[in-house]
Amino acid sequence: MIKVNFKSHNKEVYCNEGDNLLEVARNSNIFIDAPCNGNVSCGKCKVKLLKGKVDTQKTLHIKDEEWEQGYILACHTKLIEDVEIKVPSKLSSSMHGMKIEGSDKNKDKEIFDRAKNIIETHDLDFKTNIVKTYIELDEPTLDDNISDVDRLERHVRNNLGFNEIDFRLELLRKMPMIFRESDFKITITYVKKKNKVTILNIECGNTEDKLYGAAIDIGTTSVVVCLVNLYTKEVVDKASSGNAQIKYGADVIHRIIYSTKKNGLEQLNKAVIDETINPLLESIYTRNDINKDNVVTLMVAGNTTMSSLFLGVYTDYLRQEPFIPPFLKSPKLMGEDIGLNVNASAYVYLAPSVASYVGGDITAGVLSAGIWASEENVLFIDLGTNGEIVFGNKDYMMSCACSAGPAFEGGGISCGMRASNGAIEKVNINKETLKPELTIIENCEPLGICGSGIIDLICQMLIKGIIDRRGKIHRDLKNERIRFNEHEIGEYVLAFKEEYNLENDITVTEVDIDNFIKAKGAIYSGAATLIESLGMDFSIIDKVYIAGGIGNNLNIENSILIGLLPDIEREKFAYIGNSSLVGSYLALISKDAKRKLQEIGNEMTYVELSVYPTYMDEFISACFLPHTNIEQFPTVKGLLEG
Amino acid sequence: MIKVNFKSHNKEVYCNEGDNLLEVARNSNIFIDAPCNGNVSCGKCKVKLLKGKVDTQKTLHIKDEEWEQGYILACHTKLIEDVEIKVPSKLSSSMHGMKIEGSDKNKDKEIFDRAKNIIETHDLDFKTNIVKTYIELDEPTLDDNISDVDRLERHVRNNLGFNEIDFRLELLRKMPMIFRESDFKITITYVKKKNKVTILNIECGNTEDKLYGAAIDIGTTSVVVCLVNLYTKEVVDKASSGNAQIKYGADVIHRIIYSTKKNGLEQLNKAVIDETINPLLESIYTRNDINKDNVVTLMVAGNTTMSSLFLGVYTDYLRQEPFIPPFLKSPKLMGEDIGLNVNASAYVYLAPSVASYVGGDITAGVLSAGIWASEENVLFIDLGTNGEIVFGNKDYMMSCACSAGPAFEGGGISCGMRASNGAIEKVNINKETLKPELTIIENCEPLGICGSGIIDLICQMLIKGIIDRRGKIHRDLKNERIRFNEHEIGEYVLAFKEEYNLENDITVTEVDIDNFIKAKGAIYSGAATLIESLGMDFSIIDKVYIAGGIGNNLNIENSILIGLLPDIEREKFAYIGNSSLVGSYLALISKDAKRKLQEIGNEMTYVELSVYPTYMDEFISACFLPHTNIEQFPTVKGLLEG
Repeated sequence: MIKVNFKSHNKEVYCNEGDNLLEVARNSNIFIDAPCNGNVSCGKCKVKLLKGKVDTQKTLHIKDEEWEQGYILACHTKLIEDVEIKVPSKLSSSMHGMKIEGSDKNKDKEIFDRAKNIIETHDLDFKTNIVKTYIELDEPTLDDNISDVDRLERHVRNNLGFNEIDFRLELLRKMPMIFRESDFKITITYVKKKNKVTILNIECGNTEDKLYGAAIDIGTTSVVVCLVNLYTKEVVDKASSGNAQIKYGADVIHRIIYSTKKNGLEQLNKAVIDETINPLLESIYTRNDINKDNVVTLMVAGNTTMSSLFLGVYTDYLRQEPFIPPFLKSPKLMGEDIGLNVNASAYVYLAPSVASYVGGDITAGVLSAGIWASEENVLFIDLGTNGEIVFGNKDYMMSCACSAGPAFEGGGISCGMRASNGAIEKVNINKETLKPELTIIENCEPLGICGSGIIDLICQMLIKGIIDRRGKIHRDLKNERIRFNEHEIGEYVLAFKEEYNLENDITVTEVDIDNFIKAKGAIYSGAATLIESLGMDFSIIDKVYIAGGIGNNLNIENSILIGLLPDIEREKFAYIGNSSLVGSYLALISKDAKRKLQEIGNEMTYVELSVYPTYMDEFISACFLPHTNIEQFPTVKGLLEG
Repeated sequence: MIKVNFKSHNKEVYCNEGDNLLEVARNSNIFIDAPCNGNVSCGKCKVKLLKGKVDTQKTLHIKDEEWEQGYILACHTKLIEDVEIKVPSKLSSSMHGMKIEGSDKNKDKEIFDRAKNIIETHDLDFKTNIVKTYIELDEPTLDDNISDVDRLERHVRNNLGFNEIDFRLELLRKMPMIFRESDFKITITYVKKKNKVTILNIECGNTEDKLYGAAIDIGTTSVVVCLVNLYTKEVVDKASSGNAQIKYGADVIHRIIYSTKKNGLEQLNKAVIDETINPLLESIYTRNDINKDNVVTLMVAGNTTMSSLFLGVYTDYLRQEPFIPPFLKSPKLMGEDIGLNVNASAYVYLAPSVASYVGGDITAGVLSAGIWASEENVLFIDLGTNGEIVFGNKDYMMSCACSAGPAFEGGGISCGMRASNGAIEKVNINKETLKPELTIIENCEPLGICGSGIIDLICQMLIKGIIDRRGKIHRDLKNERIRFNEHEIGEYVLAFKEEYNLENDITVTEVDIDNFIKAKGAIYSGAATLIESLGMDFSIIDKVYIAGGIGNNLNIENSILIGLLPDIEREKFAYIGNSSLVGSYLALISKDAKRKLQEIGNEMTYVELSVYPTYMDEFISACFLPHTNIEQFPTVKGLLEG
C-alpha cells in the first residue's frame, strides 16, 4: 500500500504500487484537468511532487525550471512509494472546475425577453400541458365509502370533466395518508391527454402556484440549468458549472473512447447526472426553497454524444464507420428513469439531433435563432466545444460539424478556461510596451483566458506585430513579456504571477496559438464549404448569429481580423449567447415551440464535410491569419499592409 | 449483548437484553408461526428452551408436561441471558411454511381444460395483445446511416405497419449492442396500440416461441404462481408455497395492524414479493430454463388487503370506520414498479376488488365459475382464509364476506396446516376402536390436518359419538385417544408420535373444534343471510360452487352433515378448487376474459353483513352441529336421530 497525500486538498488516500497518479486522483474525487484523458498529449495534468519519489519522465510540456521544482504529469506518473502531491489550484477548480455559479438576473431577463419576443413574433402559444388544481374531495362516510382512488376519479370526472385518471404506484402509496392529513383538501398536478389525466403529484392543501420546469443545456464543457416557473414562464434561477465528465476527456471523442472502458459509460453518465445536473438543481432548490416534486417537466439540449451519455446509452458506434448514432429523437422519458433530482414522473424531453455530430444543442439553437421562420439567409455558428454551422432560411436549413476542438471554451490552450469568473475576456496590447490591458469577468484575479479573450489576444498580437500571419512570435522582439523555452517555443506573458499574486504566470504559447488557428480555420472553412455546396458565397448572407460558450464579449471586428468570421458587413453579425439554453427554455414554455423543435430536427439537412472534396484545401488555406488568400479579407488586407 | 443459539437451525444471533424472542427470530429470518402476531392469544409460537433462563410465563396454551420440558411461547418471552432454543420442525417449515411445491401436471391439465371450456362456451377470444416478431434489419452503411432507433422504427413502419415505436430507456441502452451482436437479426416483443407499438424486449436472433405470462393467486395463507406459454396458452409450470406474510399474522386484520408499525408495510410487501412470489417464479424459471425478460404479462388475484400489500399501499383505513379501501381497480403497473422478477416492462394487472372484504380473488373466482353467464342461480363459496360468498346469475350478483378466519386453511387449529404435502385430508373413524383411518396428501408422514380433513374429522367425531352437537367430547368416553388436560379441555389424538415417529402427537382439541364450528357457522349464516336479503331461501339454488384452499378432497356429504353447507340435493354441489387462480389464468390468456373480469368488478353488489339485522342471530344459531334448528338439515336429522 502506498499513501498519497494530496496536500492541496488536505486528503490522504491509499493505492497500490504501480498505480497511475491521475487514476488515483480521479478515484479519490480529486479533480485534475486532463483533456486528452491521460495519453500524455495535452500536458494539462501537471502537478507538483512535494515529497517522495515517483516513476515518471520529463515531457515536452514541462519546462526545465518546472522540472526542477518537481512538476510532473499526473497521467505519466506511476506511484512507487509514499508521496505528497500539490495540485495547482487552477487545475483543481477554476479551469473547467465544478464550481456552481448562480444566476445573473439581468442576463436572465435578457434570455426571457429574447425568447418571449420569438414566441410573440411567430405567434406561438405560451402554454405547457401540465396543470395544477386545488380540489376539495367529499370526506368518506359509511354511506359514501368508495375507495380513495374512486373518490379522486369521481371528483375529476364531475369537476374537471375527464373520464379516467392514471398515476404511478408511488402516488398510490402515499394517497391514503395525504387525503387524511389534508382533510381531503389537496392539489393535484396533472397532464391532460384527450379524455384522460395523468396525475404527476398530489400535495396537501393548496399549492397551485408552485409548478416548475427546467431548461438544461449540456455542453461538452459547461452545463447550465435554468429553473422556470411554469405559471409565469419566468426564469426563477439559473446555475451553471463545468461538465464533470471533463475529467474523462475534454472532447466528445475522448469521452466516447472512455465510455467503452469497463464501467466507463456508467461513470460518464453518473458524472453528468449525479455530479453535475443534480447538484445544480439542488443549489437552485436550496436558494429558492423549491420542492423537487414540483419540478415536472424538463427540456434538455446537448450534442449527440452528450444526449447519449445523459441517458447512459452506448455511443461507440457513433465514432466507428459508418458513424451510427443510437438515436436522434428523444424517447419517452421520466425523471426517475434517468435518476434526476426532480419529480419521479417528470417528463424529460431531449432536443432532437440531426446527425452524429449535429445535435440537440444545434436544433435548440436554431429554434431560438428563428432561422426556421426567416426570410433572410442566416449563417448560424455555434462556437462551443467543436463547432457546428447552420445555413439557411425558412425554406431550407443545411448543417455541418467542424472538428474545431474545445479551443473556443478554453480547451487545448495552456491557460485556457471557460467564460466564468476570473476569465480574461478582453485583451488590448500597448503597441509600445507590449503590456496587455485585461478585462476579467467579475473583475476577479485572472485565472486564465476564455475564448473571446484568446481572439482579442491573437488579434492584438498580430496587429501589434508580436506574431506573424503563421502565428509565430517574431524572433527579433525583445520584451520582458516575450520568452522562449529550451525547445525554442515562444510564449507571451499575459500576467506575471507577481502582478496578481498568482501561483504561476498566465502565458499563451505558440502551441496554444497554433491550436487556436486550427480551430478558427476549421470554422471558417466549414462555413465556406457549406455555403459553397449550395453554389453560393459569403455575399449571400444576410445575418450571422454567433452562439456558444465563447463569452459575451466576443469582438466581431477582431474575429474577422484573425479570419474566424468572414469579412462581410459588421452590422450583419450578432452574438446570441447560449442559444441552446434559450431554445430549451422556449420549448419548455410553449407546446408550439416544442413541436417546431421536432420539425427542425426532422427537416435540417446534414452535410458531411470530411467527404466533401474541397474541404481539406479550404481548411489548410484557413490555417493562417486571417487566411492564405488575403483577398478574402479585404478590410484586413488594408490594415495589415497599411 | 445476548446470544441466542437456535439449535434447530444451527444459527447463532445476537440481541439486546429484554428483546422479545419472537421478534429476534423474525429479524434473523427464522420462521416461527404466529397467527395472532404475538399477542399471546393463539399459542402457536411454542418453542423449547434447551439452555439458559428467560423472562416468561406459563399460559393456557402450555400443558404442565410441556412446561416441565421447557416449552415456552416465543411471543411471551423476553431474553435476559444467553440461551439455546429449539423451534419444533413443524412450526418452522411445514405448517404454513415456505416450502415451494412444484406442479402436478394432471391437475394443471384440469385447470387448463376447465378454463378452455369457459372460453369456448362463452365464445371469448383466445388472445393476448403481446406479440413477438423476428425481424432482419438492413445493416447500416455510409449511405444508409440513420440512427439505430430510426432503423428499427423504419422497419416496423414498412413491415409491420405501425407508425410509431416506444420503449423504455433500458432497452435503448442495450439496443446498439444487441443490433451488432445479432448482425441486426433480432426478435422484438411488443404490444400494439392503435397506430403505435410499445416494445417490451429486444433479443438476439429468433426467439419467437418464447413468450410467457404468469397467473398469480395471492391468498392470505398460500400463494400460487402459474407460468403460461402465451403462444400455446398452456400451463408450463406451477409452484406454490405459504405466503411469507404469515409470520406477521395469520389473517388480514393482524397483517393490517402490523402494516401500521414502523417499516411494517415495507416488511409485508417484501414478504410477499421478495420472499414468496419471486422465489416461486425463480423456481419455475430454473426448472424450465426460462429467461425472466420473456415473462411479459401478469394477472394477479388476491383479496383487497393482499392486493394493497402486494403494491405496498397503506391499508389501515380499510380497517377503520368507514372502512375505505385505497383502491379497487388495478392502477397501471409494470414489473419493475413492484420489484417483480419479470421483464421490467411487464404489464401487471390486478383482478378488481368489489369492497374492503370482497377482493380480486372473488372476482377472478366468479369469472372462472361462469356465474356472469349463468341462467341458473349459483351460490359461490370461497373457503379460504375468511370466506366470501357470491350469489347470482347472469342478471345480478350479490356478494358478502364472512369473518370465518383462517380455519379452512388450517389456521386457528392447533395442528392445522394448509392442504400441502403431509396434510391429513381425509379421516374415517372406526366406531368401535375410535381409531382414525387417515388419508395424507402424497402419502407422507402426517404433519398436520388441512381443512377437508377437519371437516371429515368433526363429522366422524359427531356421528361416531365422540362429540356432541356443541362440539364437546363426551366426558364418559374411555379411550386411549381421548384425554383431558389440567384445564379440563378435551382432545382427540389423530396420530400418536410413536405411530409415525413424530416429535409430538397430532391432536384436535375442543378449542380447535370450537374455532372450526364458528368458522363454518359464519359461512352458513352468511350464505343464508345473503339469499334471505333477496327474499329467497336455499331452495332457489341451482348450483353450489365451492372454491378455495380447503383441499381437493372436500367431502360434500360431511360438510352438509356438520352444517357448513346447506342441506340440498348433493348433485348441485361442485368443488372447483382454486378458482381465483383459474380466473387469473383466463384473464391472462384472453382479452375478452380480462374485460369481463373488469365488468364483474364493476357490477357486483356488496352486502355488508355486520349491519344486516338478522345476521348475528343466524350466526349464533349456526354455531351448532349442524345447526340449532335441525329442521334446516332434514337428511342429517334422520342420521343423528336414527
